[in-house]
Amino acid sequence: MSDTLELLGFIAYTELTTFTRLAGAATTAPTPEHQLRLVRLAGDAVSRMERILARIGELDGDPDAQLLAFDGTFDDYNARTVPGTWWENLLKGYVGNGVADDFCRIAVDGLDAQTRALVIEVLDDNRNAEMSVRVLADAASGDAVLASRLALWGRRLVGDALGLLQNLATRNDALGRLVLDGARQRAGAADVDQSWVFAQLTAEHTRRMGRLGLAA
Amino acid sequence: MSDTLELLGFIAYTELTTFTRLAGAATTAPTPEHQLRLVRLAGDAVSRMERILARIGELDGDPDAQLLAFDGTFDDYNARTVPGTWWENLLKGYVGNGVADDFCRIAVDGLDAQTRALVIEVLDDNRNAEMSVRVLADAASGDAVLASRLALWGRRLVGDALGLLQNLATRNDALGRLVLDGARQRAGAADVDQSWVFAQLTAEHTRRMGRLGLAA
Repeated sequence: MSDTLELLGFIAYTELTTFTRLAGAATTAPTPEHQLRLVRLAGDAVSRMERILARIGELDGDPDAQLLAFDGTFDDYNARTVPGTWWENLLKGYVGNGVADDFCRIAVDGLDAQTRALVIEVLDDNRNAEMSVRVLADAASGDAVLASRLALWGRRLVGDALGLLQNLATRNDALGRLVLDGARQRAGAADVDQSWVFAQLTAEHTRRMGRLGLAA
Repeated sequence: MSDTLELLGFIAYTELTTFTRLAGAATTAPTPEHQLRLVRLAGDAVSRMERILARIGELDGDPDAQLLAFDGTFDDYNARTVPGTWWENLLKGYVGNGVADDFCRIAVDGLDAQTRALVIEVLDDNRNAEMSVRVLADAASGDAVLASRLALWGRRLVGDALGLLQNLATRNDALGRLVLDGARQRAGAADVDQSWVFAQLTAEHTRRMGRLGLAA
């Protein structure tokens, strides 16, 4: 049970971080229409955070404490990956959230059915990624220089994001256990280790970049 | 009807602005707990914005266009009132939203009952102000220097906020008409003019500062 609370706290924290990134992007949006769209997406992230926190409460956990325990987890990552442009910021969200969500999708496989259904629903409910795909794919298809810069930036991002998650799975016993349990269920094999997990995450990332028309 | 859409657009825009202020305050919050609280309040502002925009849609208006027509309305005000501290930012929201909300409460008096009820409910639904009162009153009561600085800041803010609204009521025919209609209904007199409105707003502001234990 405490593993469940730990994972839910981590997911809620990723939503909080998503909020912060989108709210920041809103203040530098190129048009008022983009600003409004990003503000809505930031609001969606708060709603997803609250749904996850509500589940922690139902499981008799302390929602805010579970979230706040992860405070600072992404600070190094964010300091190393400061986006230089609006496009880089969008791609950062698309890549970073994509990898983190995939990690959580694996880790959630071992949880009770109700929590799993909620997490999957929350992770699927992502207007954010759809908008990023459309906007980034449009921009990259019309500008080869931008496309190659973004492809390079995507490689930087995914390297740092995978490093962060690997670190987290090592330092946080609960998350490490859950992601291995999930991986073993998925692979249908007991001898699966973390490298299997990260190979999966990398493959998913490659597919995601492909949807933008960018090389991973 | 188009006056109604205009007022709803303005209210939605104030909620968008509230979001931006709270999201900005969240990034500089003194503790993760404060950050989380501000993120929630920012999420609330998005929800209130969407409720107002939904009403514009019900009235066959174009929600986003009505809101975006007000883009930039607060830019000068914001440039002139950059908060120097976390406390000044909180007070800015309390004073600015307070005055703008009171203006809208008067203007809404002449609208259809359903719109009026929605707007009043949305304006009343303000955890934000409650939190500000508690935090600011606590801080000011223990620190006479802070209290006198905040009192001074409050006078700056209300002067600029009233100037902005006066300007808006003059430039925007619909808002000017609605706020005068509302004022005449409230006063029960036909010869009420804008100065009556601003005397009301000033009196409400004085009461609001009193709740913080600060002189207006």
